[in-house]
Amino acid sequence: MAQKAMRDIEITRATTTKLNDFSIEQFTFGKHYTDHMLEADYIDGEWTNVSIKPYQPISISPACSAIHYGQSIFEGIKAYRDKQSGKIRIFRPYDNYKRFNISAHRMQMPEVPEDLFIEGMRQLIALDEAWVPSVHDYSLYIRPFMFATDGYIGVKPSTTYKFLIILSPTGPYYSHPMRIFVEEKYVRAVEGGVGFAKNAGNYGAAMFPTAEAKKRGYDQVLWTDAKEHKYVQECGTMNVFFVFGNTAVTPGLESGTILEGVTRMSTIQLMKDMGVKVEERDLSIGEIKERHKAGELTEAFGTGTAATVLMIRELADNDDTLLFPEDKWKVGPAVKAKLDAIREGSAADTYNWMVEV
Amino acid sequence: MAQKAMRDIEITRATTTKLNDFSIEQFTFGKHYTDHMLEADYIDGEWTNVSIKPYQPISISPACSAIHYGQSIFEGIKAYRDKQSGKIRIFRPYDNYKRFNISAHRMQMPEVPEDLFIEGMRQLIALDEAWVPSVHDYSLYIRPFMFATDGYIGVKPSTTYKFLIILSPTGPYYSHPMRIFVEEKYVRAVEGGVGFAKNAGNYGAAMFPTAEAKKRGYDQVLWTDAKEHKYVQECGTMNVFFVFGNTAVTPGLESGTILEGVTRMSTIQLMKDMGVKVEERDLSIGEIKERHKAGELTEAFGTGTAATVLMIRELADNDDTLLFPEDKWKVGPAVKAKLDAIREGSAADTYNWMVEV
Repeated sequence: MAQKAMRDIEITRATTTKLNDFSIEQFTFGKHYTDHMLEADYIDGEWTNVSIKPYQPISISPACSAIHYGQSIFEGIKAYRDKQSGKIRIFRPYDNYKRFNISAHRMQMPEVPEDLFIEGMRQLIALDEAWVPSVHDYSLYIRPFMFATDGYIGVKPSTTYKFLIILSPTGPYYSHPMRIFVEEKYVRAVEGGVGFAKNAGNYGAAMFPTAEAKKRGYDQVLWTDAKEHKYVQECGTMNVFFVFGNTAVTPGLESGTILEGVTRMSTIQLMKDMGVKVEERDLSIGEIKERHKAGELTEAFGTGTAATVLMIRELADNDDTLLFPEDKWKVGPAVKAKLDAIREGSAADTYNWMVEV
Repeated sequence: MAQKAMRDIEITRATTTKLNDFSIEQFTFGKHYTDHMLEADYIDGEWTNVSIKPYQPISISPACSAIHYGQSIFEGIKAYRDKQSGKIRIFRPYDNYKRFNISAHRMQMPEVPEDLFIEGMRQLIALDEAWVPSVHDYSLYIRPFMFATDGYIGVKPSTTYKFLIILSPTGPYYSHPMRIFVEEKYVRAVEGGVGFAKNAGNYGAAMFPTAEAKKRGYDQVLWTDAKEHKYVQECGTMNVFFVFGNTAVTPGLESGTILEGVTRMSTIQLMKDMGVKVEERDLSIGEIKERHKAGELTEAFGTGTAATVLMIRELADNDDTLLFPEDKWKVGPAVKAKLDAIREGSAADTYNWMVEV
């Protein structure tokens, strides 16, 4: 895509690089950050002080509105190094950009303009391009985020905000197929709430139920609907798909309780291209159990930016344990292979998902 | 109460006071902070670096876990100057302390020990005692809070946290009786969620619906239950009471969707003492409308630390507007007067609610 005119970014380069201290294998998710970050301030109704500078701590007021009242949203995006050309390409940043402003709207926060989000990201990655891994399953994780900065503890929307982008080179998010606990007590989101937004509070609220499931030996929870605990929602921080023969079923977006994942929409497109029928609809635990017993449900997987496609090997609901033996997995691994190929440049980018830095 | 042995607090005094720049009338809620703050760090499973120092900015990692994933909780407490003795007394800090750790548990955060919370607060207030107003309806608002500080964006509970207390002298929170909009689309909390916890995310999620109500000319929303939008929950950031003759009704706590307000429990006690019958139960909008029409529902009010007791003068549900004329208000104003008298020292503190600094 054509590069739009970008607002002035003041660039201050780091005098040294931390890159020499790492090897690719150390790039576990979210532990290390590149040499630079992008920062901008929202003051008096406009975005200003746009700068790229050495990665460094931020100073906040002890009364910082985001810390007290949770106006804080983020996105997760990945950049890959094209195996053929060596060029760096970002996976569907415009879709994350759209979702970022949907989150902003729900959390009563200002919009971030496209040039700040997309072009700021490009310039930042260009500066830290040496940090983009070229090893299979490794990539550069991009974390744009915005939070409220007023030093005022009256309960009202902040008038000032910070937008930042930080970068973290990363390897595989989970290393093994998941054991999943069906959550029927705690709730992630409800219709009329903020489940469709990528706001900080959704994640903190999920930590206790997730920790409880982990104590029991599971990797993640499968959330069910708030009203009846009957229909599946999301799987930990991922969207979820269940494959019945040649049909894949995933919960629809109408209720506003699940996140509209960019990997979810990509997975739906790729499955359709493979001739798999996709149904976005309510899917009950009852149907899952019944059709698993009948041998119709053969695989299940989660999708997300951090995890890409991650297979489920076990699903526990009360005293029932559903196993998903690896020899039946077909659609999930095929989607992952295709997505990887597009991202790494070994398959054609038919839908123009990859945006060059 | 007897002062417990307190862990070592390193005290660094401010070299000047900001107090001379203000007059009592400028003490609007949450705008100005006293000269000092308390800060402590949770590292390697224990609270350390406990210090009282000049009020100053905090440095956080751009990957600060609270900003990204919302592990952030707070409390609101008030201290008053006794009109007779001039002594400073805190209103029910032990009840807020208990709730703080209930919030911490739900958000998968560490407990804060009593000596750090209560005695830290006492020492901080003692140091800034000149900031406690002695004017009616003015007090010192105390804001203890804790947030996650790991500089790591993997979705998992943080291993490090900061606990702080900041102080803000304050006047009346709202200056007029409220016009309330009954919210039947957006939701604050659902059973199995985090509605009973005082975590940052609950407040940010409420800002859009509240802003929509304000656009229509209302002061706050009255939340209804997530499942049927039929039963009342909370009123903005306050618990809510409806008075039918000599009976006051307020939603119960069983569902875990509303905050267990300290002012709520005080109000219940004081009403019982006044001979008002108190029912904690489901209360539907239908019942409210019907009994208002029949002339049985005579007053309604919100309770909270910031607002104390705040009367409702109008309640709008779709096309129906229920008016609550001031000449019928009896219980709400009586509770407020009694609470004020206890806090300011002109009525006996029968229940030992006031804790001396």
